[in-house]
Amino acid sequence: MIKRNPHLAKLNAGYLFPEINRRKREFLKNHPEAQLISLGIGDTTEPIPPYITKKLVKAAADLGTKEGYTGYGHEQGMPALRKKISEQLYNNQFKEEEVFVSDGSKCDIGRLQQMFGAAVTTAVQDPSYPVYVDSAVIIGQTGGYHPETMNYHDITYMPCKPENDFFPDLNQTPRTDLIYFCSPNNPTGAVTTRDQLTELVKFAHKNRSIIIFDAAYAVYIKDPNLPKSIYEIPGSREVAIELGSFSKMIGFTGVRLGWSIIPNELCYEDGTPVNKDWSRLTSTIFNGASNMAQMGGLAALDPEGLVEMQQMVTYYMENASILKQAFADSTYKVYGGVNTPYLWINFGKRRSWDIFEEILQDAHLVTTPGSGFGPAGEGFIRLSSFGHRENILEAANRLKSFLKSR
Amino acid sequence: MIKRNPHLAKLNAGYLFPEINRRKREFLKNHPEAQLISLGIGDTTEPIPPYITKKLVKAAADLGTKEGYTGYGHEQGMPALRKKISEQLYNNQFKEEEVFVSDGSKCDIGRLQQMFGAAVTTAVQDPSYPVYVDSAVIIGQTGGYHPETMNYHDITYMPCKPENDFFPDLNQTPRTDLIYFCSPNNPTGAVTTRDQLTELVKFAHKNRSIIIFDAAYAVYIKDPNLPKSIYEIPGSREVAIELGSFSKMIGFTGVRLGWSIIPNELCYEDGTPVNKDWSRLTSTIFNGASNMAQMGGLAALDPEGLVEMQQMVTYYMENASILKQAFADSTYKVYGGVNTPYLWINFGKRRSWDIFEEILQDAHLVTTPGSGFGPAGEGFIRLSSFGHRENILEAANRLKSFLKSR
Repeated sequence: MIKRNPHLAKLNAGYLFPEINRRKREFLKNHPEAQLISLGIGDTTEPIPPYITKKLVKAAADLGTKEGYTGYGHEQGMPALRKKISEQLYNNQFKEEEVFVSDGSKCDIGRLQQMFGAAVTTAVQDPSYPVYVDSAVIIGQTGGYHPETMNYHDITYMPCKPENDFFPDLNQTPRTDLIYFCSPNNPTGAVTTRDQLTELVKFAHKNRSIIIFDAAYAVYIKDPNLPKSIYEIPGSREVAIELGSFSKMIGFTGVRLGWSIIPNELCYEDGTPVNKDWSRLTSTIFNGASNMAQMGGLAALDPEGLVEMQQMVTYYMENASILKQAFADSTYKVYGGVNTPYLWINFGKRRSWDIFEEILQDAHLVTTPGSGFGPAGEGFIRLSSFGHRENILEAANRLKSFLKSR
Repeated sequence: MIKRNPHLAKLNAGYLFPEINRRKREFLKNHPEAQLISLGIGDTTEPIPPYITKKLVKAAADLGTKEGYTGYGHEQGMPALRKKISEQLYNNQFKEEEVFVSDGSKCDIGRLQQMFGAAVTTAVQDPSYPVYVDSAVIIGQTGGYHPETMNYHDITYMPCKPENDFFPDLNQTPRTDLIYFCSPNNPTGAVTTRDQLTELVKFAHKNRSIIIFDAAYAVYIKDPNLPKSIYEIPGSREVAIELGSFSKMIGFTGVRLGWSIIPNELCYEDGTPVNKDWSRLTSTIFNGASNMAQMGGLAALDPEGLVEMQQMVTYYMENASILKQAFADSTYKVYGGVNTPYLWINFGKRRSWDIFEEILQDAHLVTTPGSGFGPAGEGFIRLSSFGHRENILEAANRLKSFLKSR
């Protein structure tokens, strides 16, 4: 009989968000009357704005015409979209061949793991988006899980805490082949400064590592002094891959559209350009993002689409500000919520899942327990600002009552 | 510096279809006036029919409304679509949890390789869809490529030739953990009979292997005696995964929608249900097919959609018949073209790429060289019936002239 893949068996529990959903369903079974509000999973809630919707509708209608029908596209994405991403988001720094369109960053991370394989070593920020570690476990880069430390063997965890301004102490960080790094950070909301990112790029150069820079929330950065892309840092082209996404940018979480950048300068030890393997892998186990989604991406990067995008970002950032305000009279320290849609709240020595349950039971709010993002997230709760305004206002009131009652 | 994944380095050349495109572009550079017709890649050409298009348009428009907007869905697919696939295509044999919606079979194969991992052994039909072998190479199941035999080490190739009615001699086939099997077959066009498929299922039971049954062309089977699904065979639930696709069924090659079935009975040696790991993997490195595509899938399985589907299949099968007729006076033996959209033509001792080039140069037709599908495809050419009728008629005329001139 066929043996179960031992790497999958190592995964210690369900993926974080399905586990939250399970607890949510259980709560609703016991409290069918409860009006739950979710500040949990970072899922966009506002309709796609009119200009972009009009173009999505046109893309769908065109598929029903002889002239407008399209079948398989390039696995790497529509040339026009690859070009436009470079033009509109990267000052035209990249050639078409350096930009790859995908069905989203989570899927890109799964494929990146297949490309790099089991033999590489990996460092992640702690806490971090669970997919980096879980996908590294699946591909076989790690040892087993240790419940006491909440760590997998053979992964380097780089603690990012208030004490170090959420930026790892690179002098204490061993060399790894890959470094996953996310800014604006999910979950801590920390936005890396230009100096910090320069330090990271130098560190990667010294160690000849590859940084996989997750910039899914870049559009939320309003402060012009903060870098929106790792490619604003000199020397980054030789050491960095960047992942981008239309999900949080314009509400495409269900539409599915993202991209990756692999500059021509990024090479393996034997001189092979990394993007050569990425292109080959993409051709082999991917078939391109949906043609309708890609037409939507083109629309989002039109001048009208870019305006709609900024309006949507402003809306969610107002939400963030309302939620942050709810903590004004509390003693709990709140991070994030500026230049990022996430708030990261320190509940001190309490356990994250306990706080999660308490807020669920008492305030009927779904949050995300910080420990789900890694051991250094213990004691924290993440709040997401994605929600209808009326729900966010109500959630803020409930939070205030909850905090007052402590 | 980071080492290139040695498994990717094993891949001997470009993926087949990009290579064909390269040769096509080169030809057009030298013959800019040529009116090329493609019978190469199996890419649908006819517009999506009106009922389904209307529903796609509605899905897009709904995303622009507060009531109709949806963000992240279940990674495993919309519950309504999982249910409807079982109801409409499998006589309701499967529970929702046994059906997984995806962005297409090629992507599912890439993820299946991640699930099974590097330690399993694999058998493929020879010739076969290149993705089975290439993705097995990438994940590390194989040794190096041998140009003389056109084989990778540590993969079992099961020759499927006219001499064995395109069904492997299972008495000569060693045990492997996985067996990829495709019917109606791409590229040979062979449709496995009920007896043959029963033999295969028994073989898998005896060896405790898992069959990955690729049924992407099932809708093209008109003969009621031929099985459209492996689950028509008793005992298959314990040994088979089935992959399905909306691509060739209803022209969704660019829309991106497919599914996989993993019955609850299918377990690993340790008793873990395979679909438990599949669900976990799907949650971790996938985020669901586009919500618009899924709404299109629901429409395709409505009574109106199913009628449109049959009309489209009839159209392409008439194309197949026209192409087959072009060979009536030739001595070359033609397989397929009935219950399948592919024709598989035996050019005897000539080399596939030579015939490909000859047909390209003399008849201005793009075909697919059989050797691109594996060593046993040498000497064959595959023709695809996907095309506008006027192009297929013109292609048939050019083929007749080409054949007469030999």
